[in-house]
Amino acid sequence: MATSEPRAAGGEQDPNSANLRPPTTTNEYAWMHGCTRKLGMKICGFLQKNNSLEEKGRLAGQKNLLSCDNSDRDARFRRTETDFSNLFARDLLPAKNGEEPTMQFLLEVVDILTNYVKKTFDRSTKVLDFHHPHQLLEGIEGFNLELSDQPESLEQILVDCRDTLKYGVRTGHPRFFNQLSSGLDIIGLAGEWLTSTANTNMFTYEIAPVFVLMEQLTLKKMREMIGWPNGEGDGLFSPGGAISNMYSVMIARYKYFPEVKTKGMSAAPRLVLFTSEHSHYSIKKAGAALGFGTDNVILLSTDERGRVIPADLEAKILDAKQKGYVPLFVNATAGSTVYGAFDPINEIADICEKYNLWLHVDGAWGGGLLMSRKHRHKLNGIERANSVTWNPHKMMGVPLQCSAILVREKGILAGCNSMCAGYLFQPDKQYDVTYDTGDKAIQCGRHVDIFKFWLMWKAKVSRVDRRVHTCWLKKTEKHLQANKNLHGFVSPQHTNVCFWYIPPSLRGMPDGDERREKLHRVAPKIKAMMMESGTTMVGYQPQGNKVNFFRMVVSNPSVTQSDIDFLIDEIERLAHDL
Amino acid sequence: MATSEPRAAGGEQDPNSANLRPPTTTNEYAWMHGCTRKLGMKICGFLQKNNSLEEKGRLAGQKNLLSCDNSDRDARFRRTETDFSNLFARDLLPAKNGEEPTMQFLLEVVDILTNYVKKTFDRSTKVLDFHHPHQLLEGIEGFNLELSDQPESLEQILVDCRDTLKYGVRTGHPRFFNQLSSGLDIIGLAGEWLTSTANTNMFTYEIAPVFVLMEQLTLKKMREMIGWPNGEGDGLFSPGGAISNMYSVMIARYKYFPEVKTKGMSAAPRLVLFTSEHSHYSIKKAGAALGFGTDNVILLSTDERGRVIPADLEAKILDAKQKGYVPLFVNATAGSTVYGAFDPINEIADICEKYNLWLHVDGAWGGGLLMSRKHRHKLNGIERANSVTWNPHKMMGVPLQCSAILVREKGILAGCNSMCAGYLFQPDKQYDVTYDTGDKAIQCGRHVDIFKFWLMWKAKVSRVDRRVHTCWLKKTEKHLQANKNLHGFVSPQHTNVCFWYIPPSLRGMPDGDERREKLHRVAPKIKAMMMESGTTMVGYQPQGNKVNFFRMVVSNPSVTQSDIDFLIDEIERLAHDL
Repeated sequence: MATSEPRAAGGEQDPNSANLRPPTTTNEYAWMHGCTRKLGMKICGFLQKNNSLEEKGRLAGQKNLLSCDNSDRDARFRRTETDFSNLFARDLLPAKNGEEPTMQFLLEVVDILTNYVKKTFDRSTKVLDFHHPHQLLEGIEGFNLELSDQPESLEQILVDCRDTLKYGVRTGHPRFFNQLSSGLDIIGLAGEWLTSTANTNMFTYEIAPVFVLMEQLTLKKMREMIGWPNGEGDGLFSPGGAISNMYSVMIARYKYFPEVKTKGMSAAPRLVLFTSEHSHYSIKKAGAALGFGTDNVILLSTDERGRVIPADLEAKILDAKQKGYVPLFVNATAGSTVYGAFDPINEIADICEKYNLWLHVDGAWGGGLLMSRKHRHKLNGIERANSVTWNPHKMMGVPLQCSAILVREKGILAGCNSMCAGYLFQPDKQYDVTYDTGDKAIQCGRHVDIFKFWLMWKAKVSRVDRRVHTCWLKKTEKHLQANKNLHGFVSPQHTNVCFWYIPPSLRGMPDGDERREKLHRVAPKIKAMMMESGTTMVGYQPQGNKVNFFRMVVSNPSVTQSDIDFLIDEIERLAHDL
Repeated sequence: MATSEPRAAGGEQDPNSANLRPPTTTNEYAWMHGCTRKLGMKICGFLQKNNSLEEKGRLAGQKNLLSCDNSDRDARFRRTETDFSNLFARDLLPAKNGEEPTMQFLLEVVDILTNYVKKTFDRSTKVLDFHHPHQLLEGIEGFNLELSDQPESLEQILVDCRDTLKYGVRTGHPRFFNQLSSGLDIIGLAGEWLTSTANTNMFTYEIAPVFVLMEQLTLKKMREMIGWPNGEGDGLFSPGGAISNMYSVMIARYKYFPEVKTKGMSAAPRLVLFTSEHSHYSIKKAGAALGFGTDNVILLSTDERGRVIPADLEAKILDAKQKGYVPLFVNATAGSTVYGAFDPINEIADICEKYNLWLHVDGAWGGGLLMSRKHRHKLNGIERANSVTWNPHKMMGVPLQCSAILVREKGILAGCNSMCAGYLFQPDKQYDVTYDTGDKAIQCGRHVDIFKFWLMWKAKVSRVDRRVHTCWLKKTEKHLQANKNLHGFVSPQHTNVCFWYIPPSLRGMPDGDERREKLHRVAPKIKAMMMESGTTMVGYQPQGNKVNFFRMVVSNPSVTQSDIDFLIDEIERLAHDL
């Protein structure tokens, strides 16, 4: 199966490393395994790989892999080494005598993961080790993605874990600027490990008492930050911003046309939704899914910075009414996906009040600024919204997934969605069943997304503000001014920085179709080379009449000025011949 | 804050234990911390709690907590002890010198989690330590759920982790029979820890290359098991069975009335969906959400075992057509939520073919039987379905969440849902962009649910069959015959066993309204006492004209005959005075 060659220097040695610096000395190699000094004393015990794990040739010749500073401990630990090649899943709990192999196995996994964590923060490692789909499918260095017909040994399972991380993308790496969600928060990570271990479900207090209460208290806190009186209202954590936005459209419809729940859309007139041409595509998706139709999702024009023009909203509302349609819902975006634009919520709210429309604020990306004393003003007016989407898994760095839909009116989520399933939401339980939140959701089972966020809030509430400051423009805006080959065309409002890179061949060329076409191909070419080289990642896209441009996003507190410099330098290096 | 008394014996000692046997000897207590022999040699290093963690009084008097068999090692490990009371989140990575505290902190968390794992499999521990919402909100033993205004120390964060687990419900405990999802699979758990650490998103190959391919290969395997030629078709992992079922209704609508995507439901006639009166409530929820209206979700009558009566389906189709409505979609349930009933798929498929309707099979619960040579026949005809929901997080024991929507026709998921967002799904990437699956989903970001399942499949494929066998009727059915106070009223088709418990006071009473009313109150009373006592958990509900009855479900391979005996004994014990 292993027909492809590894692409990365160093790729042959450590399934977990993809290190930019080829290991030259034994000590350095040992360091890559994190087996150093005091720390090593704690973890070297389970750091030590069974020799058979090394047989794949990756670790050949690295005798001193486990160069802990205490060799007699090494020897003693060896006695407890587990040979995973003869162990299988059937030997783990609940098997008789399964406790020891279970613990050994889990500790081996933790070793792999903590190594990955360390490397994620290590700028000498690559962001990714790119391979095309067909290469990974063919099997690289024996990493076989195919599902087998026979159970594999725990040794192979551990190798699979290492390989999975090796060929993945380090979204927590300080040089990963590709997505709105980035970073690897240690508290959040611990929270998610605990959540996985608790392995329960949010639908009832009965089986998730602590998590249900944490969700309730956290949502209240979030509503307070929005500015709703006493934090009153309702809400849920949902599987992402798109679903949160979908909730907002559903409850808006239920508010004005509750009969749609039972009779369907034919019970309502032709309903129209409004959202920015720069807004997230999930509003259109919701329009399609919920039976409005995308034609009835009216896109609003924006100013040069990507903000909705309120007059355009009003004009389009009047136009819709004149056609006999019924305006229902307006989405204001707080932090648009590409430009990071903030729609003027107060002006939009005035219009919504005037025409009695539901106002939703999609703060999936920008909602985190509600925690910032300095930047909160960008969301002024959000307290007038009927509903808000806010994804702590974006600017606030909570591990994926963590998205909230918050609603000002109490009871409407339940009114809209409840079906009163008798097997789950028994009214005759011994506890206060208003804590059974499951019937408010469109889901039945609901993943526990709250704990990591709750834990992060407890651990660092005051740092959220700092996080936003740290990520903010000081790190980004000046690059556009300092480098004449970077052509920024929109003054940043959030940590999104959009720019063209003008390669040497285009620098003297007059504007026109030819230049536009050529420029359109520049970002994809650079991005492709960047992924092959694996050193950094940044996104690109066209928007409106603008040809492909880069969108750099900073939401990872690990990012320093030097990382942004590195990105720019890499772009220049890669685009040298373009 | 700590105004409430702990309810459980032993609850004061170990925040993680809730052990039914109060610790009597130091050795036993040490064992509860898993610090035994070889295993202890590996983990005792980070097992050792900082004394301050013990100050809360729970561990008072347990000097020999860390009775590893090698005391000189203890001494050396102590040197590396970390005082978490002076450490905060800000001291962890990416902080300068943050690597060591990060590793120490994560290892402490792992210690807490591995202890929890051990106790989950330990029948001497309780399933839960029940408290009412107001008690937990008031704060028990200092467990403060409120979000603070100041960052808490890592010591407090670790205490919070322990408390969170202590007051939760051990869904993996062999005496937890409450939900369709139960058990704690070690391989799956490891997979979920890795997924959290990788912290990426399924929307593009670009940032989740390995996971996207794993999903593709696994979905193909699942389609092969369904019996679609060459495993062709499409699919996605979604955030649960309810969303998977919602997908099926959406794509059925798109197949027959694609113009609804752009024009809304007004472009279609009045569409009608059919599903069993015993089916999951998510079909009705989908009907409400997607704009059909619940009135247009027609419930089908069932036989005494809860299976759809095909003649009733045909009669209701004809009735709908006569009224001028347009039948669109039929859901056949493979493993109903309460009875575990399997609708006759082949007979339903015949009717769907005759009237040109979309056939969906909701195999959220029963889909796992496709892996069983012995029980697969219960899903005969599933290969004729247009779409299938199958939740590996139920019978197959994959940690929550893991649900697949599988579709026979290729391309229809994308056709139905794609919006071609330029910032994410660039057509000019360097790799084959058909691997960017995100635009097929109604979500944007999508949690990585595949890895744990892929890993479990690799580790134990052949055991899935055994798992089903193990869980099967041999463990359950005979109880209904053996115990005259258990009145089963439906012959089990899956591992659901439904029964009334007849308490002493009702044993001679003639049938009638009074007895029915009294019997209706029995299960809730027993369940309440059971939760207070914390020894086991089982669900109850009314259904149709049947008053509250118990539904015991076995989906955890840890369950033995003795656990089922224990449940029945507990019911008898608790109901003694009823």
